[in-house]
Amino acid sequence: MLRVASRPLTVLSDEQIETLHQASLRLLEEVGVEMLDGRAVDLLAHQGAEVDRASHRVRLPRELVSEAVSRAPARFTLHGRDPRKSVEMGGDSLVLAPAGGPMMVEEGSERRPGSYQDQLRFIKLTHHARLLDITYRCVEALDLPAATRHLDYLHAAVRYSDKPIGVMSLDATAAEDCLAVASLLAGGRERLPDVPMLMGGVNVDSPLRFSRETLEGLMAFAEAGQPLKITPFVLAGVMSPVTPAGSLVQQNAEVLAGIALAQMVRPGAPVVYGSFGTVADMRSGSPMFGTAEGVLMEVAAGQLAGRYGVPHRGMGLVTSSPLGGVQAALEKASCLWGLVLSNTHLLIQAAGWLEGGLTASYEQFALDLEMWEGMERFLAGLHVDGEAMALESMARVGPGGSFLMDEHTLAHYRDSIRASPLMETRGWDAWLADGARTVEQRAGDIWRRWLEEYQEPPIDAGVEEAVREYVERRKSGEPPGVPAGR
Amino acid sequence: MLRVASRPLTVLSDEQIETLHQASLRLLEEVGVEMLDGRAVDLLAHQGAEVDRASHRVRLPRELVSEAVSRAPARFTLHGRDPRKSVEMGGDSLVLAPAGGPMMVEEGSERRPGSYQDQLRFIKLTHHARLLDITYRCVEALDLPAATRHLDYLHAAVRYSDKPIGVMSLDATAAEDCLAVASLLAGGRERLPDVPMLMGGVNVDSPLRFSRETLEGLMAFAEAGQPLKITPFVLAGVMSPVTPAGSLVQQNAEVLAGIALAQMVRPGAPVVYGSFGTVADMRSGSPMFGTAEGVLMEVAAGQLAGRYGVPHRGMGLVTSSPLGGVQAALEKASCLWGLVLSNTHLLIQAAGWLEGGLTASYEQFALDLEMWEGMERFLAGLHVDGEAMALESMARVGPGGSFLMDEHTLAHYRDSIRASPLMETRGWDAWLADGARTVEQRAGDIWRRWLEEYQEPPIDAGVEEAVREYVERRKSGEPPGVPAGR
Repeated sequence: MLRVASRPLTVLSDEQIETLHQASLRLLEEVGVEMLDGRAVDLLAHQGAEVDRASHRVRLPRELVSEAVSRAPARFTLHGRDPRKSVEMGGDSLVLAPAGGPMMVEEGSERRPGSYQDQLRFIKLTHHARLLDITYRCVEALDLPAATRHLDYLHAAVRYSDKPIGVMSLDATAAEDCLAVASLLAGGRERLPDVPMLMGGVNVDSPLRFSRETLEGLMAFAEAGQPLKITPFVLAGVMSPVTPAGSLVQQNAEVLAGIALAQMVRPGAPVVYGSFGTVADMRSGSPMFGTAEGVLMEVAAGQLAGRYGVPHRGMGLVTSSPLGGVQAALEKASCLWGLVLSNTHLLIQAAGWLEGGLTASYEQFALDLEMWEGMERFLAGLHVDGEAMALESMARVGPGGSFLMDEHTLAHYRDSIRASPLMETRGWDAWLADGARTVEQRAGDIWRRWLEEYQEPPIDAGVEEAVREYVERRKSGEPPGVPAGR
Repeated sequence: MLRVASRPLTVLSDEQIETLHQASLRLLEEVGVEMLDGRAVDLLAHQGAEVDRASHRVRLPRELVSEAVSRAPARFTLHGRDPRKSVEMGGDSLVLAPAGGPMMVEEGSERRPGSYQDQLRFIKLTHHARLLDITYRCVEALDLPAATRHLDYLHAAVRYSDKPIGVMSLDATAAEDCLAVASLLAGGRERLPDVPMLMGGVNVDSPLRFSRETLEGLMAFAEAGQPLKITPFVLAGVMSPVTPAGSLVQQNAEVLAGIALAQMVRPGAPVVYGSFGTVADMRSGSPMFGTAEGVLMEVAAGQLAGRYGVPHRGMGLVTSSPLGGVQAALEKASCLWGLVLSNTHLLIQAAGWLEGGLTASYEQFALDLEMWEGMERFLAGLHVDGEAMALESMARVGPGGSFLMDEHTLAHYRDSIRASPLMETRGWDAWLADGARTVEQRAGDIWRRWLEEYQEPPIDAGVEEAVREYVERRKSGEPPGVPAGR
């Protein structure tokens, strides 16, 4: 888990934060949101919201929102099956997770629909990657039946990794399956609030609408005290106002509505303020990722999350590029620097994501981790003391000399310099003579080596069997939920 | 010229800045520097330095250095032939210049030695580029005689652009030629301090050595009140200690020695604190550019320059990559974000630089300018007011609606969103159907279009003729300097 001692980058003044905050409250109060689930509407009405049951429109008084949001914790622990892999959400930590749920896979120059085999490989690569903290699907297993794919993912995530697990797109059934598996890992449903090992994702149907499935998942996870990240996708010009400030107001209102509902279900429920906003390419209506506008919106969203004292999830290393290459590198680098230097605690899509989330790439996975290795080194900062300042070495070498063989160089080059296995430093002729291999080809070597190096983590045989049995039973048609007595 | 309202990124505490500063003064006092020019040694001895004329070693008392450096101005104007192109060095400005002096050219997939024709094209491209502020050579004209190439460059820089002019690698003859041409532009040698149009570059033969040529150029420019940037190249592990802190101490000492000498020659002489430091790949001894260590060193150097109140020149968009592509993109992006967000006022190598400075690339030139376009948009920040927050638009569109055809979208999409001509946003299928063109290919279209769009700036016929005559006279063997009466 990365630690970020200083997050100096801001794009909003305190006054602007307050202006956007007030506008969001006004939007929730005057326009409101649609909540397409009767139980959620009932709960909000009971708490004092003004509801129109015919249109599912809920208008939330500002005091109600502010009071509910104030109950959200500033930080919480997401547990790994191996306690050493547990991560802090909030504070000075920056938690990284790979791509969420692309449909396609890119391997070398091949692009194909994702399979369960790909999903397994990505889970193993994520487990192996020192800088990735949470298991995610990375790619849909399109060769498995849609209705039970989430069960195969849960089983694989438990079996092939011992890191905390991220899940997405919950409806009531999927949420119940997640909580059942989490209960088996935690040693009982009643232990879930104390040892949360799964984090759920709540998406918003922007603008200002929460689907029935979303609300079912949100309420089930909140009730069980399982962490939730609440993330609208505001695409400025299509799903939100074209002006970044307008999109931020809407996004903020949507997240606040979701956080408020979760806190009404269970005060103190662990939540993450998710932002995932960018502008549309008005020539095509497609999102443009990794642009200046997108990074500005993300940095601003982090400042808003900071106002509420809730951990912030930023977009991740995102790109519109249909393939790995210069565009992906540039767009991802903008996200990397903008988000790491601003108020961000969690990044999903931190490795492997391409083409606006449609594709997961093995080569890009290795490249993105190389970017994180560099950033980790940058965050470690400079070491300034007598030995590092090397005055004796400079006196010894003197004007016009070389440090190459000086004892100070020999003593410190290992801890002073990180040599990248991907980057070429020798110049054109040496590079050509050595086969003119591209960075992408080297990245291909690296993820394949990682897969070879992968070691399955130990797992309690009883837990593994219980999870496997649960998944098999569910796939054979039984209803979700762990029967009493198990 | 970019304006940077906030430079929040720092990597040194105030105490660490002071520690490095004191170590640099101690290095200058105890170890000293070699100054391979008798005039410089005489001047320093006269001012109180301890000199050893046999070894050319000069030890500088700390009071002498501090007092001299304190005379350097915090900001100055570098003038363009067109006064609207003049730039402020220091303050909140960030001045950009293209590559300095690569030997090779990359055009598409062709790599070849640089020619005068290439130099002319790069001068025109630089003139055309809205975000580049200073003309530089970009590439050596290897097809011209080495002894007089600088004259052809000066003539071309005056003729094909009206921006301020950067020159490098000065010896006494080249410096005199520069000052002669600058005098013709300024309307007389006595006007040079008031209307400086050329900025000279002083390199240091690290560790701790100034060559005779360097010192001749430094003193000539300082005497004439022409701006100088003083830039060691500290390659940690080879030309400076392998530890970044040690390299910073040495670099700081070298820059301070250069600035001090310039101030002794002419108190108040305009100078720029140049840094160009990175670590060596210890497998090959080659520099690794755009690494975490390199960016850390650059950010720290900016903080040191800030301590002395002198404008800071950072490396630029540098890379070790022998060709354009993912490596170049990633390494340059690290430089871009690290340097723009920290204390930097001038970046040379801001466009076109590849392969550790050996190669200038046309495609990379266009790509780098695309990075600057994005950064300019980022620096413009967010606009937050009632119209931008779009509450009426959100009320109109309502939950579940689309903003695509809303009047607010139509009114604001042009000023809200910058669509890049290089980046693909439409996804794989549309990209494939449209010819599967790479970013590099699009960059090729763009620089060619820029060259077509280039318009020669007007020039006073008398000035142009005077410069041309001077260059011709010098190339025919006459000594440098404008004869009295011209």
